[in-house]
Amino acid sequence: MTTHVDNSLSPHGGTLVERVRPLTGIRDVAGLPTIEVREQIVHECVNIAYGFFSPLTGFMGSADVAAVSATMRLASGYVWPIPIVLDVAQAELENAGVSVGDTVLLTHLGNPLATLDVSEIFAVDLTEMARQVYTTTDPDHPGVQRTLGYADRFVAGDITLVCEPVISPPFDRFWRTPVQLRAELAAAGWQRAVAHQTRNVPHSGHEYLMKGAFMEARADGVLVSAVIGEKKEGDYIDEAIVLAHENLRTHGFFRYGIHRTTALLWDMRYAGPREAVFHALVRKNLGCTHHMFGRDHAGVGDYYGRYAAHEIFDELPDLGIRSVLTLEWWYCPTCGGVAYEGICGHPDTKQDLAGRLIRSIISGGTEPAPQTLRAETLALVRQCAEEYGFGSPFVTEQYLTERTPVLTVPAAA
Amino acid sequence: MTTHVDNSLSPHGGTLVERVRPLTGIRDVAGLPTIEVREQIVHECVNIAYGFFSPLTGFMGSADVAAVSATMRLASGYVWPIPIVLDVAQAELENAGVSVGDTVLLTHLGNPLATLDVSEIFAVDLTEMARQVYTTTDPDHPGVQRTLGYADRFVAGDITLVCEPVISPPFDRFWRTPVQLRAELAAAGWQRAVAHQTRNVPHSGHEYLMKGAFMEARADGVLVSAVIGEKKEGDYIDEAIVLAHENLRTHGFFRYGIHRTTALLWDMRYAGPREAVFHALVRKNLGCTHHMFGRDHAGVGDYYGRYAAHEIFDELPDLGIRSVLTLEWWYCPTCGGVAYEGICGHPDTKQDLAGRLIRSIISGGTEPAPQTLRAETLALVRQCAEEYGFGSPFVTEQYLTERTPVLTVPAAA
Repeated sequence: MTTHVDNSLSPHGGTLVERVRPLTGIRDVAGLPTIEVREQIVHECVNIAYGFFSPLTGFMGSADVAAVSATMRLASGYVWPIPIVLDVAQAELENAGVSVGDTVLLTHLGNPLATLDVSEIFAVDLTEMARQVYTTTDPDHPGVQRTLGYADRFVAGDITLVCEPVISPPFDRFWRTPVQLRAELAAAGWQRAVAHQTRNVPHSGHEYLMKGAFMEARADGVLVSAVIGEKKEGDYIDEAIVLAHENLRTHGFFRYGIHRTTALLWDMRYAGPREAVFHALVRKNLGCTHHMFGRDHAGVGDYYGRYAAHEIFDELPDLGIRSVLTLEWWYCPTCGGVAYEGICGHPDTKQDLAGRLIRSIISGGTEPAPQTLRAETLALVRQCAEEYGFGSPFVTEQYLTERTPVLTVPAAA
Repeated sequence: MTTHVDNSLSPHGGTLVERVRPLTGIRDVAGLPTIEVREQIVHECVNIAYGFFSPLTGFMGSADVAAVSATMRLASGYVWPIPIVLDVAQAELENAGVSVGDTVLLTHLGNPLATLDVSEIFAVDLTEMARQVYTTTDPDHPGVQRTLGYADRFVAGDITLVCEPVISPPFDRFWRTPVQLRAELAAAGWQRAVAHQTRNVPHSGHEYLMKGAFMEARADGVLVSAVIGEKKEGDYIDEAIVLAHENLRTHGFFRYGIHRTTALLWDMRYAGPREAVFHALVRKNLGCTHHMFGRDHAGVGDYYGRYAAHEIFDELPDLGIRSVLTLEWWYCPTCGGVAYEGICGHPDTKQDLAGRLIRSIISGGTEPAPQTLRAETLALVRQCAEEYGFGSPFVTEQYLTERTPVLTVPAAA
């Protein structure tokens, strides 16, 4: 059965969700059963409440989880590829005295964040859910691992943010809700905005990827949407990612007005093509008209085809955001610059702008070869290492434990 | 009054014109009144007969000339911007005994080229026609000069090629009729073909203009359509133009299969925006879906706005070929390569890839700075100078008088 809904409406589903109702005082939520939530769930509450996840208004119930897992659609018929769920242990629900029909207070580090109107409490077969979403049950897959690690019950229901999170520097300069960002893009005249998903400090390959996509989309601008979320050792530190992207603009590698950087709070699932669809929908909600998808988009290991994220959209209806499918950019000594796989006729002598090469440049402290990493980027990354990374541009154990959190939930008055 | 016709049909007007009926012998045209025509008219006969100028089937009558001059449309309503006329002196018509209703033989250097079924003989106010087509009557404008130099009568009527011209090396390798080229593009899978109009040896600015347009049009290939026609001293020699474009492909600056070069026999009118429309229609007839228009397209002096060729299409109906409007590419020492005006934020320190600079590189015999002119192009141009240019890559008096003609009309059997 196909449900007939218009998936091309922008925001996704047609209405930008906004579920923010700040407390007038702590007494507003006094006496509610309380569930303390981890950072991932904080991110998702924020994304739901501000409309990043439109049309979602809360954590999914069993019908949506089943439909999303099996068919990449919500029960309502709108395309949605990844279950957004609040997992809580049955024992904890009993301790807190949570039942269907209750309004529950979600807290983070003890401070009120959101209320949740519990519509359903249910269990799912996590292995089957992992298999459907990730096409594998291999516990080495980080998304599978995350799924299999869920607590034994899912709590569904609409959420309302009761306390707006505070975003720490330097991310505060980049943080925009969909309403804010849409207003800014409109004011800037960006009728065609192409989204660039990143968790990287940009090397020349990324820079030209964006430049090529800007041209392919005949865009008014490129929106770098940096995914800020769970980190593991060896990742670039978040501060370096957003600041290095902004730095490309500051130094005029993109002229004023055609490039901007924003932050998305999201813990990567590495769901490959399904996550590509998710990225597209979130950036559509941000006001983008186009989304870049390169090689191995949001993939991990060998679970997905190299260009699976290019192909998945063929099976879907018009999502109201167009894909810009990019091949590789490499350094070509014959062409004498960064060259596009779709154009350059010298693949045999290309020099890959691989992340590994760039990391060795950054780690080694030597100046980069021209056209691999901008000297301006290297200088910025080194500055970030000192200022935010405890001496390293890459995530270390110390960074994980001692960094300033990106987001804090302030104590209610 | 607007005539309602579908200008988006491809070929223009909906049907590819082919009016070629080779003589079985010279007796087929024995006894016909004869008009000897100059090279420009040979080019136009060829273009009409092979369908480059579809939907034209012959030289225009007074209704078409008036409509085209005043409204940029044929009397039938199809967009057409430049009068295509056969001018003959009244005295010559009388000598040859040509009247309306006659079939006339057009010859070149005495050899039969085409028959013309005379439908009308008429005069027009050439100054008014020049003013309408070129928006000026300044005799320094080469198109105006050409118009004011027309003989005092226009002979209208359908033409039929009776003897196919022979194209000389090296142009023979690049010569394709619309039927041939359409078949080749189809065989190559070029569903989206972007045309590049040129009369230049390509420097890096041109190369990246094509690369950018390839991306903007999300094209399957770039068709270089080199205008081969009347030359003046100082122009690049024709041989260098087509061979240097092919050379970019041969050396892999475009990978195999996405770039090809063809020749168009046309004497430039320098009609600026009107000529841009003309170029679009002819390339649409060649099977192109997109056409590049840069700064000062087909302009001369200061008669037309810098981007007039970008704007004129706004006033026209859908022509069935889309414009790819390109700004400048320049060398940017900060970006470290050829950079696009639409992206690069360093316009104050750009180095223009002006034709003059490139000419001085070519003339001076010094090696070009990287990223201005490919060393491979320079070597090819020098080789062309020796082989075809009497020692010069630029047109000289000797070249004009002694070169091998691009096209010959063979003697009929």
